[in-house]
Amino acid sequence: MKGVPLEADKITVLAGCGSVLDLLFFCIASEGDAVGIPAPYYPAFDNDLKASRHPLKSVRCGLHSLALYLDSSKPVSSQLDAMWDEQNFRVLIVTNPNNPTGEVIPKNTLLEYLKWCCKKGIHLVSDEIYANSVFKRKEDLVSMASILEECEPELKASARALCHVVFGLSKDWGISGMRVGCLYTHNTELTGALDNLGYFAMPSTLVQEAAHQMLQDHDFVNHYIAENLRRLEASYDALTAALEKAGIPYTPAQGAIFLWVDMRAHLSEPTWQAERQFWQDIVDLGVLLTPGKDCHGREPGFFRICYASTPVEGLLEGVRRIESHIQQK
Amino acid sequence: MKGVPLEADKITVLAGCGSVLDLLFFCIASEGDAVGIPAPYYPAFDNDLKASRHPLKSVRCGLHSLALYLDSSKPVSSQLDAMWDEQNFRVLIVTNPNNPTGEVIPKNTLLEYLKWCCKKGIHLVSDEIYANSVFKRKEDLVSMASILEECEPELKASARALCHVVFGLSKDWGISGMRVGCLYTHNTELTGALDNLGYFAMPSTLVQEAAHQMLQDHDFVNHYIAENLRRLEASYDALTAALEKAGIPYTPAQGAIFLWVDMRAHLSEPTWQAERQFWQDIVDLGVLLTPGKDCHGREPGFFRICYASTPVEGLLEGVRRIESHIQQK
Repeated sequence: MKGVPLEADKITVLAGCGSVLDLLFFCIASEGDAVGIPAPYYPAFDNDLKASRHPLKSVRCGLHSLALYLDSSKPVSSQLDAMWDEQNFRVLIVTNPNNPTGEVIPKNTLLEYLKWCCKKGIHLVSDEIYANSVFKRKEDLVSMASILEECEPELKASARALCHVVFGLSKDWGISGMRVGCLYTHNTELTGALDNLGYFAMPSTLVQEAAHQMLQDHDFVNHYIAENLRRLEASYDALTAALEKAGIPYTPAQGAIFLWVDMRAHLSEPTWQAERQFWQDIVDLGVLLTPGKDCHGREPGFFRICYASTPVEGLLEGVRRIESHIQQK
Repeated sequence: MKGVPLEADKITVLAGCGSVLDLLFFCIASEGDAVGIPAPYYPAFDNDLKASRHPLKSVRCGLHSLALYLDSSKPVSSQLDAMWDEQNFRVLIVTNPNNPTGEVIPKNTLLEYLKWCCKKGIHLVSDEIYANSVFKRKEDLVSMASILEECEPELKASARALCHVVFGLSKDWGISGMRVGCLYTHNTELTGALDNLGYFAMPSTLVQEAAHQMLQDHDFVNHYIAENLRRLEASYDALTAALEKAGIPYTPAQGAIFLWVDMRAHLSEPTWQAERQFWQDIVDLGVLLTPGKDCHGREPGFFRICYASTPVEGLLEGVRRIESHIQQK
């Protein structure tokens, strides 16, 4: 988290962000609680929140995620108020930059989220797992940890108790198999609980040593991040140029490794079934996207493209195949 | 587990046996259930079973452990029946070889445990974390995994559903920080659940690779185990000889890294408080033992000596100091 001086005793390191979310939600929410998540969002949140409460022996009610469809042209808090009136949720998760859209949340919006959560007395989880993968107007990205420092004194105490930042090495560093996930929180009751519960999801000493060595090598860190951003941006630029040429709309992204494309015009009808069919059709052409439904898209026809692990030629070939499929219809 | 042909799809590997117990008990027991454990037993079972259900937000009732005081001169099943009549427990844990006594459970007793659990329809967890640290009459140690194979056909189906073996690298290999814990079970519903839940306690790919390399090196494995047993036995022999000379009784062990010594004659009175005082007195002399109370000893005055990480001279010096304290009184 660039530009935020973190205090070591406020950081909990566990065996991946999956473990962080599992133990964090175990501590801050109760079975049956709803967790609000601005949509579209990361498909695996659903399992992360539910599975950890879904034992073998019986189907118990776990946490359930609640997709919040916010209009970015209107103030956040009045929209959240209206949604809250319909169904209370105990925790709000914001992912910045977002998965699947790659959008960076404006600083003012982050502050609005924080204030609103403090007003309601609910926990705010800021998922910043892609924070080092912002390649367009990098300065727009602000960590919730720094919003926390800048907020009004009368807000600070409750903000510090309620706001928790999740980050790790899996995405920005391309090493999800290494299992290093972190939580940053000022809530000492929470860090105390995780001190004990963390035993059940400890990162190996081998992993601690490897991560320590890697992060201590500042030349490597600076070089790696710069080169990673350069490559992500090159792929992003090539992909978006090809999509524009093909007339496929997309949500402009600033970071992460995803693009949210709009294929609504090309579905046989505006249904989830037609979205599924479109997905299958292009799978048959050798192109794998994430259906918008899995990301809780507001309506059928959106897809997530992950462009990080495919070379540019592969991305362009993918767009050509999608184009040929669209033109065939 | 020597002599037992394990099937790979029945093994679940997680980030340490703490994680294995946490997720295993999450699957096979419900909040408020009791777990029977023949005593004395491993002090940390209490936290392992309770903490995983003890969230920050409220004091909820977790699993609780129930110390079972069995008389080894009598048949197991009638004793368990009587205890069960007093308080049902949903799971039975047996640790073989035992912590803190280092005793190996006879094969017939293991079979009795298994049959009894099948009769009651409760889960049996066989904790074999010290299975490769048996240095006296090694052939006595039999894994529950092999008892399972040998039991009567009419028992096999329920035994396979109910019996789960826990083992790992932490103790026998002296690498608890590496976090490698394993579960062996024929229960496919359980392995299926852990396949999902295991995401929250995954061993790093770094750790998987290191463990793989280590265990594939058969020469190293054979040499390490033989040398480890030789050193453990040498320490055990030196320690027990010194205790005998000092007139301090102990429970003869066959393995693990502990000795269970009887200081009842040297407490100021037969109370837990006096045990604590004795413990403190010898701590003040620079000797650290585990109080029997923490291991759920049946009565005050027993202590656990861990002799694995102290050189023989240190063990002998420790006995001398205990002796001098006893003689002073």
